[in-house]
Amino acid sequence: MSPVRTGFGAALSAVFLCTLFLATDPAWADEGMWTVHDFPSGAVAERYGASIGPEWLARVQRATVRLDGGCTGSFSSATGLVLTNNHCVWGCIRNLSTDEENLSETGFLAASREQERQCPGARVSVLNGYEDITAAVAEATAGKSETEANAARKAALSRLESECETAGDLSCESVSLYHGGLYFLYKYRRYDDVRLVFAPELPIAAFGGDPDNFNFPRWNLDMSFLRVYEDGKPAATPDFFPWRAAGADEGEAVFVSGHPGSTDRLLSVAELQSLRSDYLPQQLIYYSELRGRMLEWAQTSPEAARQVQQRILGYENGIKVWRNRLSSLADQEQMARKVEAEQALRAAVAEDAELAAAYAGAWDDVERALAAWQTMADDYRYVEGGKGFQGSLFGWAKTLVRGTNEVQKPNEERLRTYRETALPRVEQRLFAATPVDPGFETLLLSFSLDKLREALGPDDPVVRQVLGKQSPRALAGQLVTDTRLADPAFREELWQGGPEAVAASDDPMIALARTVEPYARALRQRYDDEVEAPMNQANERIAQARFAVLGTGVYPDATFTLRVTYGAVEGWVEKGEPVYPFTTMGRTFERATGEDPFRLPQSWLDAREQIDPETRYNFVSTTDIIGGNSGSPVIDAEAELVGLAFDGNIHSIAGNYWFDQRVNRTVSVHTAAMLEALETIYGAEALLRELEVRR
Amino acid sequence: MSPVRTGFGAALSAVFLCTLFLATDPAWADEGMWTVHDFPSGAVAERYGASIGPEWLARVQRATVRLDGGCTGSFSSATGLVLTNNHCVWGCIRNLSTDEENLSETGFLAASREQERQCPGARVSVLNGYEDITAAVAEATAGKSETEANAARKAALSRLESECETAGDLSCESVSLYHGGLYFLYKYRRYDDVRLVFAPELPIAAFGGDPDNFNFPRWNLDMSFLRVYEDGKPAATPDFFPWRAAGADEGEAVFVSGHPGSTDRLLSVAELQSLRSDYLPQQLIYYSELRGRMLEWAQTSPEAARQVQQRILGYENGIKVWRNRLSSLADQEQMARKVEAEQALRAAVAEDAELAAAYAGAWDDVERALAAWQTMADDYRYVEGGKGFQGSLFGWAKTLVRGTNEVQKPNEERLRTYRETALPRVEQRLFAATPVDPGFETLLLSFSLDKLREALGPDDPVVRQVLGKQSPRALAGQLVTDTRLADPAFREELWQGGPEAVAASDDPMIALARTVEPYARALRQRYDDEVEAPMNQANERIAQARFAVLGTGVYPDATFTLRVTYGAVEGWVEKGEPVYPFTTMGRTFERATGEDPFRLPQSWLDAREQIDPETRYNFVSTTDIIGGNSGSPVIDAEAELVGLAFDGNIHSIAGNYWFDQRVNRTVSVHTAAMLEALETIYGAEALLRELEVRR
Repeated sequence: MSPVRTGFGAALSAVFLCTLFLATDPAWADEGMWTVHDFPSGAVAERYGASIGPEWLARVQRATVRLDGGCTGSFSSATGLVLTNNHCVWGCIRNLSTDEENLSETGFLAASREQERQCPGARVSVLNGYEDITAAVAEATAGKSETEANAARKAALSRLESECETAGDLSCESVSLYHGGLYFLYKYRRYDDVRLVFAPELPIAAFGGDPDNFNFPRWNLDMSFLRVYEDGKPAATPDFFPWRAAGADEGEAVFVSGHPGSTDRLLSVAELQSLRSDYLPQQLIYYSELRGRMLEWAQTSPEAARQVQQRILGYENGIKVWRNRLSSLADQEQMARKVEAEQALRAAVAEDAELAAAYAGAWDDVERALAAWQTMADDYRYVEGGKGFQGSLFGWAKTLVRGTNEVQKPNEERLRTYRETALPRVEQRLFAATPVDPGFETLLLSFSLDKLREALGPDDPVVRQVLGKQSPRALAGQLVTDTRLADPAFREELWQGGPEAVAASDDPMIALARTVEPYARALRQRYDDEVEAPMNQANERIAQARFAVLGTGVYPDATFTLRVTYGAVEGWVEKGEPVYPFTTMGRTFERATGEDPFRLPQSWLDAREQIDPETRYNFVSTTDIIGGNSGSPVIDAEAELVGLAFDGNIHSIAGNYWFDQRVNRTVSVHTAAMLEALETIYGAEALLRELEVRR
Repeated sequence: MSPVRTGFGAALSAVFLCTLFLATDPAWADEGMWTVHDFPSGAVAERYGASIGPEWLARVQRATVRLDGGCTGSFSSATGLVLTNNHCVWGCIRNLSTDEENLSETGFLAASREQERQCPGARVSVLNGYEDITAAVAEATAGKSETEANAARKAALSRLESECETAGDLSCESVSLYHGGLYFLYKYRRYDDVRLVFAPELPIAAFGGDPDNFNFPRWNLDMSFLRVYEDGKPAATPDFFPWRAAGADEGEAVFVSGHPGSTDRLLSVAELQSLRSDYLPQQLIYYSELRGRMLEWAQTSPEAARQVQQRILGYENGIKVWRNRLSSLADQEQMARKVEAEQALRAAVAEDAELAAAYAGAWDDVERALAAWQTMADDYRYVEGGKGFQGSLFGWAKTLVRGTNEVQKPNEERLRTYRETALPRVEQRLFAATPVDPGFETLLLSFSLDKLREALGPDDPVVRQVLGKQSPRALAGQLVTDTRLADPAFREELWQGGPEAVAASDDPMIALARTVEPYARALRQRYDDEVEAPMNQANERIAQARFAVLGTGVYPDATFTLRVTYGAVEGWVEKGEPVYPFTTMGRTFERATGEDPFRLPQSWLDAREQIDPETRYNFVSTTDIIGGNSGSPVIDAEAELVGLAFDGNIHSIAGNYWFDQRVNRTVSVHTAAMLEALETIYGAEALLRELEVRR
């Protein structure tokens, strides 16, 4: 599993669909990514005898953190120590590594607080409160046309966020639940100073690599520690999870809190068909080629290999996800249930004159929006969506060209990316001292320009204007060599100089972004008016129709906001054979081959005799998670840490569309293994002293 | 367009479906790849006023050739001169090139017959006669169980082929038309000595590269000449096509003869769904990654670039085909017609008690076969189908391990690959002096071993036994370095030594093939019994049901056997704009950028002033072709050559499933451009003298 990937697929996630139609036996299904403000404590008490009250939920809320790059973490001490996955800090590790010192290979353990190293551009958020703003949003859009309502909705959200931040000392982000059925403001405490404390070596963190990803049995030490700082000192974080040394037991009830990125469980059938025929195949084709390019490029030098070793795992993760999602959508039985559920809802709407008048046309509107999307899909993806211009350098150029213009406008008229409340993060990322590898940037840009031409054709106006008579490879190489944007000071200078400085710049990457900007803007406008506007309005109406027909009491699709899911430590049956829910540390050594991705680091080989081979290592549970939950704490009914979620099994990938409790499993590192590794392999005494370990 | 690719997709092509259900207006559709023994002369006379009699068809048959690698050609003189596409001789050009002399870059023109250079492993076949053997096959399978009938059918075909060759001096191949509705023996004259006469430079033959492939307007000189030899002398080929210098005119009736590789127009809906959810996505994922690997590997040295420059175009062609096929199958309107046609046929069968008893269950049998396929698809593809062990070296090793064993058996008990009548070709390919590039072989084998592990998992028995503790890259490198199979003499020695020599060999690639063989054999047996047997039987029954319900008078799916299609030179309407059916040579120079794939060879730049810019260059026609037709002659009603087919437009890709005359077009090189280039650019006086040009 990987950090959440937000893409256009998410933007197409549109309709919520009552799970009552989906679960085989709702009373006994551990299904659902529940908000803390609407948690089914009654069902959990009935099923597991666990008493989950408001106090428990509030503590879990304060001890669970979001890594804004796309992961989850949790506090492990009162002094800002954050436990998360190793794969959630790969960006930080790469940014802190050099050709001389590759932290992926060596691992990292800060010998003292002074040696904890800041992760460029990282941010951690803790949910501190929330507020229902559905009525205010409804008021802003009432009586407006589809496109006016779309603009008004976005303006209202930007305004409400700013008002919220003015009224308090927290950061405020709006969130749409049930695809527009409800709107909330979520209020976060932010930590911009995030430092690396501990990371094991990549070969053991990602042991088995892509072949084992999404599989179980499994033997990964996919853990790391960060620490959040305030005013240069470790932040005070009184709410944290003590560690239960014995860790999870078979059959016991466990809970996972975290930030699942997105799910598509409530989509209309038309949207699922669009994902199957359009979105998923094009993702697979695009990233499979990029994977191939990176794998061969990695062979050209040790430096190149270092640049891409983790990134390749990320792409491979995506490919496995999309591939299995595509297979899931070929599951005729599950798809028939989707069709049936939608037909049942539409029939109920049609039978009631009032509902019919208000909502019956919404599904046709979805199809209309999808038809409009089909006329512009490739243009949008490549020119505005970024598939044609990959890499950090162009990304910064686009931020500079667009952002400096946007911030001149009143807050409510800006693109949401540049609204007042989002600017601190925009600037943090723009100014961060993120190292840039020219070879890797050239590879990415060259590849994406090639794909731009392939998708739009050599006679497309954007393609002609961008490439002129140059080849993608030659142009990419020249741009990366000649631009100064790798220098954070140069980026900050341009940003501070505003639109005039950006317009006057002779930097070639800035010039490219200026060339692309009018086309990209026009496509965004077209998308907003022809796709987003009807889709959003249709989704709101379908959400309301569902509330009317099916009532409430269901959970919304995932939105990279805090959710809690419950379940039990339990294996499953694979091709008639039971899968035992635990692995042990000893088996790792038998599985090792000495060759990537089954190579063990020297620290493990050295400690082999000292490690208790029977120590529980990885385990599975029936909890309902998805990408973005990476790094989530697995806790027991007492809110003690019993594991660290880092993956799902192969069947969990279909969880994007439906939850099948028979086979969908969360894969976690057991606390027993984390403690054994910290003590026996890494000698991390200070960390062990800092943790509150309950034996 | 590319040479035909025969793959498992073809094996799944199963059911024939009356085109009366498909064409919008059958009386006026130029649809159909017709056999010469069942050509719709009446319809052609009615539509175009052309009189196509048996003599015309016989001449066309004898003047059209098959390039057994997967293309078509035609005789252009009485002394064995064969006109075909440049892209049909890429293998030959690569095999004849060295690091010092790259014929792709320089082009090739034999200054005299003595300088014509033999293409290793090439073979040309001319259809000389045919014979209906449906009754003999039916007799062989009558009363047998599904699996027995499957074996008996194959045995009968091997026997009938051998008997046919014994009875005459021609080579005999059986062909199944209508997916088992009819069986024929096709009798060929073979030419094993095929020499390269002329090839323009790759940059102009494939001008526009992948971006322009399957597009029009177009500016490609995708032509070459070969010559077939007998007993070391140019073969006598009295039937050939004279060239009409003025070439094709707008609106005129034209004919294309050739060897379309395969189509899936008669598939059942279940099979189309299987292609959409399984075959096409996995092809796209696999070959997109390989494309990326080859593109980056090509950057590592000029030698590497030379190895892969044409191969990449081949893979890119496949990716474009599969991608557009996948989009085609998302065409809800066309798919609805497929469903409707199948339902109509099934309803007609169900209504008649006799038909119902004989055929009603056949569609369920197709679904049963597909379900069985799903349980073994990856194992079969990777272990037996070759996706896990790519490259010439392993291919030869497999031929040696399997073939030396098979030839010990009586002819009718052998796998069809090694039947008596197929052995000359097996040996020709095994013994040919085909050069092997170790770098490229390592790349291919390393990639495919990687994919083998990815598809089957690291714990699969084949994967474990093949890889042991090695990485795919290390193992591939070692095997390619250590094997002696690159030496044709070594291969011939092992083949002649028989199974004992192969079993005793310590060559590591042979050892690998020996390791894989039992697994691969078991999978083939399972496939034959559980997939092929029910599929073949069901197909025969569905074909018979169609004959019974709809009568005859329709064309069979393509089978890489001789077909003739008719149509007119005509543009089409693209997004509301008419596309003019011709391009001119002059525009080529404006389109050129100097960078691949829009780079012109020096010969063209030098001749620019001498070329008449208004010369017709490429053109389109409504003729119905598909991969395998590459190199087909485009002829007029007098059987004079007016063009050389080399591609279809983008809409022609959907032609695998249905023919949409509104937009499906053949793309050809005009004779006027070929003559202008031969004369003005290449100074090919001897060739021009040899051609019978009618002005």
